[in-house]
Amino acid sequence: MTSEMWPDRRLLDLFGIELPIVAAPMANFAGVDLAVAVAEAGGLGSLPCAALSPDLIRADAAAFRSRSNNPLHLNFFCQVVALPDHAKDRAWLARIAPYFAELGLAPPPLPLPAGHPPFGEADCAAVEDVRPDIVSFHFGLPPEPLLARVRATGCKVISSATSLREALWLAERNVDAIIAQGAEAGGHRAMFLETDVATQVGTFALVRAIAASLQVPVIAAGGIADGQAIAATLALGASAAQIGTAYLTCHESTISPLHRKALADPARETAITNVLTGKPARGIVNRFMRELGPIDAAAPNFPLARAAIAPLRTKAEAQGSADFSPLWSGQAAKLPPPMGAAELTRKLAEEARAIPA
Amino acid sequence: MTSEMWPDRRLLDLFGIELPIVAAPMANFAGVDLAVAVAEAGGLGSLPCAALSPDLIRADAAAFRSRSNNPLHLNFFCQVVALPDHAKDRAWLARIAPYFAELGLAPPPLPLPAGHPPFGEADCAAVEDVRPDIVSFHFGLPPEPLLARVRATGCKVISSATSLREALWLAERNVDAIIAQGAEAGGHRAMFLETDVATQVGTFALVRAIAASLQVPVIAAGGIADGQAIAATLALGASAAQIGTAYLTCHESTISPLHRKALADPARETAITNVLTGKPARGIVNRFMRELGPIDAAAPNFPLARAAIAPLRTKAEAQGSADFSPLWSGQAAKLPPPMGAAELTRKLAEEARAIPA
Repeated sequence: MTSEMWPDRRLLDLFGIELPIVAAPMANFAGVDLAVAVAEAGGLGSLPCAALSPDLIRADAAAFRSRSNNPLHLNFFCQVVALPDHAKDRAWLARIAPYFAELGLAPPPLPLPAGHPPFGEADCAAVEDVRPDIVSFHFGLPPEPLLARVRATGCKVISSATSLREALWLAERNVDAIIAQGAEAGGHRAMFLETDVATQVGTFALVRAIAASLQVPVIAAGGIADGQAIAATLALGASAAQIGTAYLTCHESTISPLHRKALADPARETAITNVLTGKPARGIVNRFMRELGPIDAAAPNFPLARAAIAPLRTKAEAQGSADFSPLWSGQAAKLPPPMGAAELTRKLAEEARAIPA
Repeated sequence: MTSEMWPDRRLLDLFGIELPIVAAPMANFAGVDLAVAVAEAGGLGSLPCAALSPDLIRADAAAFRSRSNNPLHLNFFCQVVALPDHAKDRAWLARIAPYFAELGLAPPPLPLPAGHPPFGEADCAAVEDVRPDIVSFHFGLPPEPLLARVRATGCKVISSATSLREALWLAERNVDAIIAQGAEAGGHRAMFLETDVATQVGTFALVRAIAASLQVPVIAAGGIADGQAIAATLALGASAAQIGTAYLTCHESTISPLHRKALADPARETAITNVLTGKPARGIVNRFMRELGPIDAAAPNFPLARAAIAPLRTKAEAQGSADFSPLWSGQAAKLPPPMGAAELTRKLAEEARAIPA
């Protein structure tokens, strides 16, 4: 298969890739191995840097480059950090105290640890050293001075929108492409202007709305797990599809056995929840989501809700239970069988090309 | 354009129609005029009978047949009627009492009027008289004895699924086609096995899941408002697309001027709410949805929640306000300009055929 077979070449030419397939960056769930496999197969591999120190970013980027000459893509979170709210955190710990009692654990001390900071000075310095081909941001864009430094390295800059309004905001800031993250997508919602999960838009309507309204190339995300779905996103006007959950089933993903088992259950159900991390994210419904949410405004602000249940999660997982684990997953029902990520990338592309007009 | 231009002819041949376009039945919002216009243009027109008496069903069917020789399609609701719960209704009226005070109205007396019954004996007798070509049900299927009588008339029977589980249930009961109603869809969710709005699946993932898992033809619904979107549903494996909100903008729809104005606002937002009727339905966010929901398990059971706010709605609408009105709408952002429904049907088909592979 050659890249000439894809009618919309905008993103292929922009990124210098062969296939209109982007591996979703999945912090903590995938690393260099998955990124290299996808890149070598002709898609856009992704190095999730949201949970990495600057030294690890440099190391992962070097490892990628030692194994692939294809485009290097780094992904960062750029959330606005909420002011500390100890009263809120204290009330939440009191509310979930029965779980700690049940598992014979002490709740974590206050203040809850702040977690990994958003894209900042040190990350930016790493980007300037590494000079990736593409940088993507989640939760909007970083402050203008940092963004200007990223752009000055010559890389392409992309970000995700969960509404037409967010897409317009990104387009006004001249991003090179927009990921239309439909409500079906697994993991954290990119919401940065939107605050209401109830009005989040499905992939079908969102991709069409953004592609019909803007000139910037659109990458469709959410519920896409096979070649027919990729073909459908192209029919909607997207220039490429971003695939997350299907890659989690690949040999190279670093998810836990519990997560892998949950994804393999055809009866799994997902919901958007904020009780596991503090920000809305779609995952397979587990006990904590069912009993506490899935959405509760009283949950600690991102990412403190994660720290609030960390001891529960650790002990439960050791006992073989995912009751408190973030089992991120999109809504695509039928996932591919386990295989290598390069093989999956080629398979998706071949299936997509086989769909008749 | 001829029907030979569509690669998947299963539904076209099953129904005897030319275009893979179904007008969503929209009770109270559209009638014979819209059904005739769509049918004459080559799509499947729909006569919503959920709010009609048997005499009106016969009259509408006769009117349709006097104006079109194309297939006659009747749609019914077959909800399971909840047992009366006066305590629940009383508590709800107390909760919303401030709105009645604000508008200078008395709350409705208890018990709340039961509303139109689900598909029953008298409706079935009307179907036996009228002998439509297609009967569709919403909220599952009617009890087996009634369903057997409907089938004995020789018509095709179809129904909607909001999950793969509901689709499997319908397929086991040998429906002739399944409408995959994605979360983007406007109006009442067809949910009949599902009870949790939080796990409802987007159009993209749902259509693909059902089309990939079942042999029965699939009609995609939810967020589809232009030809590119129709082409995308066909790429996903659907045999046709069902279109609702776009037809509401047509001259033939019978929506209120307030509803028409709300649909014309490009900044409108929709959410799935149960506070307007008692069952989850997607509509444009208005004051009552914002302040009371959008979802609250305390709302009276379907359709009593509608009666609970009926006086508020009537007075507010007379004052030009849609604060208490069901402004059903799907999530498709860009709706067509006002035109006739026949013209829109032809335009949608032409656009869909123009999408390259």
